[in-house]
Amino acid sequence: MNVTLRDELYNHAIEWVHEAGNIIRDKMNDPLDIQTKSNANDLVTKLDKETEQFFVGKIKKTYRDHFVLGEEGYGDDLSSLAGTVWIIDPIDGTMNFVHQKRNFAISVGIYHDGVGEIGIIYDVMANTLYHAKRGEGAYKNDVRLPALMEKTKINEAIIGMNHFWLCENRFVDERAMQQFVKDIRGTRVYGSAALEFAYTAEGIMDGYISMSLSPWDIAAGIVLVNEVGGKTTDIDGNELNMLEKSPILTCNSAFHTKILDNLQKGRK
Amino acid sequence: MNVTLRDELYNHAIEWVHEAGNIIRDKMNDPLDIQTKSNANDLVTKLDKETEQFFVGKIKKTYRDHFVLGEEGYGDDLSSLAGTVWIIDPIDGTMNFVHQKRNFAISVGIYHDGVGEIGIIYDVMANTLYHAKRGEGAYKNDVRLPALMEKTKINEAIIGMNHFWLCENRFVDERAMQQFVKDIRGTRVYGSAALEFAYTAEGIMDGYISMSLSPWDIAAGIVLVNEVGGKTTDIDGNELNMLEKSPILTCNSAFHTKILDNLQKGRK
Repeated sequence: MNVTLRDELYNHAIEWVHEAGNIIRDKMNDPLDIQTKSNANDLVTKLDKETEQFFVGKIKKTYRDHFVLGEEGYGDDLSSLAGTVWIIDPIDGTMNFVHQKRNFAISVGIYHDGVGEIGIIYDVMANTLYHAKRGEGAYKNDVRLPALMEKTKINEAIIGMNHFWLCENRFVDERAMQQFVKDIRGTRVYGSAALEFAYTAEGIMDGYISMSLSPWDIAAGIVLVNEVGGKTTDIDGNELNMLEKSPILTCNSAFHTKILDNLQKGRK
Repeated sequence: MNVTLRDELYNHAIEWVHEAGNIIRDKMNDPLDIQTKSNANDLVTKLDKETEQFFVGKIKKTYRDHFVLGEEGYGDDLSSLAGTVWIIDPIDGTMNFVHQKRNFAISVGIYHDGVGEIGIIYDVMANTLYHAKRGEGAYKNDVRLPALMEKTKINEAIIGMNHFWLCENRFVDERAMQQFVKDIRGTRVYGSAALEFAYTAEGIMDGYISMSLSPWDIAAGIVLVNEVGGKTTDIDGNELNMLEKSPILTCNSAFHTKILDNLQKGRK
């Protein structure tokens, strides 16, 4: 992708993310009209929808030939990542948004011909912007994030993962994962995949595994994690298909093989 | 306890908590001299120790007849809670302190003849002070925390609990807890008991269970949670012995019986 165009997209994306953040902060105490999607705990609110519509409107007006892949379905129905695709989660961590009124994020990834060029994750209530352009490093606000340390001891790792990994599930034997949590230093659950990617990029967690994430949950995060020397794959170590849901692993590269080995021990 | 004296203690405690927070922020990028205690993941640093010594020094100089119960052992060796006892965790969430440089708290509870009179939990890096006096409500900074809503649906509850509840353990059958996490709306793991009590008091989580907490982990939190209509007991519903470690449940009172019932289903 042309660098001048990329810089322009990046500036627009950040401008719109901040505008969307302002709208969310202004309206978040209005009635949220909470609905559920795939299950009773998969929440969506009026503001998720309105925020996605805001982005789709801005993008389609400014870049007529760009595509949008968005969680709430106001974008395009894509069968390929050819061209320039904005992959957007208007409110990642909707359960936190509803119950906590914080700890949620706007996630915007911009991909060109399938390559992640720009990643932006905005923690709306903390007013913290994680952002990266491919090959130019990742930033938290104005501070460049250092490369992840070449840690090697899995028993000193903190891993983000929810509790379902330790219940009977279709991916791995839960007993292998019960052993895994005993072998590492600690686990964390924050309830926003985008923020958990950002925290991994920041090095405050060493990795994050999730059973089922959609492209909009991870598109921006992948770019951020790449820029600090991290790695994101499915739980078998394969490259991700960015048009499908996948079970994913993102982590400090130093731990990638070790975490994969643990997942493979119980892999069904 | 005399109200004038209590107000004086409260003001001193808040002043010292802020001073200690300043010291921690100033020194946290110096070498931490990390050691381990009960196990390889039970971390302690020079700053945990120095911060506790700071509090013990201030308290003993100002209130010669008060006692201190502190995590790092610089206080008194108590066999009773008679008199006025400051129960202090200088850095609650030391793993977060070491790995994240945020998401840790100073916790100060002041008890008189066994009754929790004052609770202060200070999120040092967010500069957020949770504080309460018995019978006078709980506050987050200058804002009074509202009474917890009389929620009743356990399937809409967010519960803080670590992953060990879903591994074989000596308290409950892990399968009962695996079912429990499927029955509730969501789980969170933040890595600081004091903050998890504060979040419960704030209502951003509906409860928190932990297998083994010491008096300094919970002394301040109990006062906060009480003041918003929450309840803290051991996992059998019994009152806590504040001189011992216990498996604990703190929550919105509306959920207390329901969560206890779930714990009892698998109780060993």
